[in-house]
Amino acid sequence: MAESLPQGYQFAGVHAGLKRNPQKQDVALIVSDRPAVAAGVFTQNLVCAAPVKLCRQRVPGDSLRAVVINSGNANACTGEQGDRDAEGMAAAAARACGIAAEQALVLSTGVIGRLMPMGTIEAGIAAAAAHLGDSADHLQTAARGMMTTDTHPKTCARQVEIDGVAITVAGMAKGAAMIGPNLATMLAVVCTDAKLAPADAQAGLKDAADESFNCISVEGHTSTNDSVLLLANGAAGGPQLAGSSLAKFQATLVEVCEELAIMIPTDGEGATHLITVEVHGCATRTDAVRIARTIADSPLVKTAITGHDPNWGRIVSAAGYAGVPFDPDKVSLLINGSLLYEHGAPVPFDPAAVSAAMKADRNCGLVLILEEGEQSARFWTSDLTAEYIRLNADYTT
Amino acid sequence: MAESLPQGYQFAGVHAGLKRNPQKQDVALIVSDRPAVAAGVFTQNLVCAAPVKLCRQRVPGDSLRAVVINSGNANACTGEQGDRDAEGMAAAAARACGIAAEQALVLSTGVIGRLMPMGTIEAGIAAAAAHLGDSADHLQTAARGMMTTDTHPKTCARQVEIDGVAITVAGMAKGAAMIGPNLATMLAVVCTDAKLAPADAQAGLKDAADESFNCISVEGHTSTNDSVLLLANGAAGGPQLAGSSLAKFQATLVEVCEELAIMIPTDGEGATHLITVEVHGCATRTDAVRIARTIADSPLVKTAITGHDPNWGRIVSAAGYAGVPFDPDKVSLLINGSLLYEHGAPVPFDPAAVSAAMKADRNCGLVLILEEGEQSARFWTSDLTAEYIRLNADYTT
Repeated sequence: MAESLPQGYQFAGVHAGLKRNPQKQDVALIVSDRPAVAAGVFTQNLVCAAPVKLCRQRVPGDSLRAVVINSGNANACTGEQGDRDAEGMAAAAARACGIAAEQALVLSTGVIGRLMPMGTIEAGIAAAAAHLGDSADHLQTAARGMMTTDTHPKTCARQVEIDGVAITVAGMAKGAAMIGPNLATMLAVVCTDAKLAPADAQAGLKDAADESFNCISVEGHTSTNDSVLLLANGAAGGPQLAGSSLAKFQATLVEVCEELAIMIPTDGEGATHLITVEVHGCATRTDAVRIARTIADSPLVKTAITGHDPNWGRIVSAAGYAGVPFDPDKVSLLINGSLLYEHGAPVPFDPAAVSAAMKADRNCGLVLILEEGEQSARFWTSDLTAEYIRLNADYTT
Repeated sequence: MAESLPQGYQFAGVHAGLKRNPQKQDVALIVSDRPAVAAGVFTQNLVCAAPVKLCRQRVPGDSLRAVVINSGNANACTGEQGDRDAEGMAAAAARACGIAAEQALVLSTGVIGRLMPMGTIEAGIAAAAAHLGDSADHLQTAARGMMTTDTHPKTCARQVEIDGVAITVAGMAKGAAMIGPNLATMLAVVCTDAKLAPADAQAGLKDAADESFNCISVEGHTSTNDSVLLLANGAAGGPQLAGSSLAKFQATLVEVCEELAIMIPTDGEGATHLITVEVHGCATRTDAVRIARTIADSPLVKTAITGHDPNWGRIVSAAGYAGVPFDPDKVSLLINGSLLYEHGAPVPFDPAAVSAAMKADRNCGLVLILEEGEQSARFWTSDLTAEYIRLNADYTT
């Protein structure tokens, strides 16, 4: 976790009562001490939650001050009352922080189709405002406030010196299931003290999300609430970033987004392996992502890895139905560095040794090499276990 | 099962030695006593098995005589030797039946990436030819010869009188996993004694498959070997079917294909529910199929039904990421006939009663109603259980 956090931000997480367990935070608040540029990428699900609609109206923007987050209730499929409740959450955060209602953004995650208990959540927002602080512990506690079935809070931070100014980028994310692109496949908020133009913030977040949050899945089900926000308040000082300085910032932003994104399938519900699928030699990056995602989302591939079975046939055949044209006679495949399939034909290998290596390592690397071009992509997913089934066969009732 | 089978066909199933258990058939043979029109639809997986390539060269055709089938070895990802082995299986069937090699079709299913043990299979084909017969028992035994993890053989038959002639359509199918369109998502052979033009046979089979075998899934992984064949030998007598007579035949063909197709997710690996997803009110049938398939393939929808949880949020949100435009405020949903969601908002219902009904019934019906047009579709799938994970986490090794 972060030794240092971006300047000008405070964080809080409290238990408001949306979750039954009083030890568990369910409301989080992030406040910038000055107006911040804000960017966002959101679920592409047509059925999107009320807070997503609210955020879409407010980002990109140049004078945001707060993000209020709750877990335990998604405020999705809740009709016009849900829209009013999302507005009500923003208004409550504004009252508690002494800002305008339009300066607050809202993120929600949890059960779909239940109206938000507004009394409970407004009291929680007021309590959170009373517990704000700028330490790493405060960031961790805020990250706990967005957790659902996550087993631990997910945060990370990086510093980079740009034109003599120390810039910090820190983020928090949640997600362990209902994870599948596009777009951003969970909740995440990234805060920086860099000074960015709104258009640069939006374009930079979109690009970073495309290499990180849009390249992860757990079971491939795109949520109604997925949102990734970027706040940039300029508190570090220095000029608005442009040119090579902006590029240097962007590289750090991608690092933070990638680190946060990978934490999600790593903590995927019931997961026993983090699977990294690399696809090389495609005509376009879009082709590479599509093949990688198809492999990652195949239950037969996932269960083979759960059973540490080097079943390359499932992997190669998943690539074949991705909808991307390629020559199957030029395909090669490695699992954990062992070449199992080369130019469309199996390579003799020791299944027991490869299986033992898969069993010993919580990380499983699949590398598929085509010969259609120069583009490549990485995609991260979790394996599929009986524990995932147990967790999801009885959630609302 | 069939009281009567189409005239002019014989069936056999034997144990050749591809499966370890000597009680289990692994080679099947279907022979027509006269040249038959043959049609086929095949996997759209780019990585397709050698027998699929062979069949694609030979259908549609007008003088086929035999179909040889093996289970236990898919002859997929086996390079040029695999192509020669598929030819070798056709040649062996031809020798055993006294026909030309080009008159035989080949279907294989089983493990990917292993060379076919040709001595074993050639002996099995010769044995099958010695056990041919035209009884329902012979059809059942042949159907057993194509089983992999299926728990029972899948056959069905229908009779229809067309222009005073009794026409019979009978089929056999296999499949319990690696089931996801397109195209035909498993192995099936349908035999009829009707007299059809090759182009009519091909078009009719394509249409029938689009309403049946292309509307089922287990886990959505499109196989390398999926094939559906239709043989029409004209042995019933009467003229070549055309016009309304052809339409009457087509209706029967669709019934047989649908009955066979539904048997597959019903017998899906580890399944405790057959899920029927109906989508109504779409602009096109393609849209309706796409939404139905997206719902059917969501692990979160499947596990909700495993846990008999009326979690309509997972179903509505899956529709939202199908890639089909619709107005989310006009969506309604029924589970097992209970209206849970109407015009974009939840309807109060008794979760315990709906859950109890889901628990009591092995069939689960989901009906999603949009207001974008008049087209609809049905899609069938199995639920997702810990037993599916157990079966698939350790298959080849």
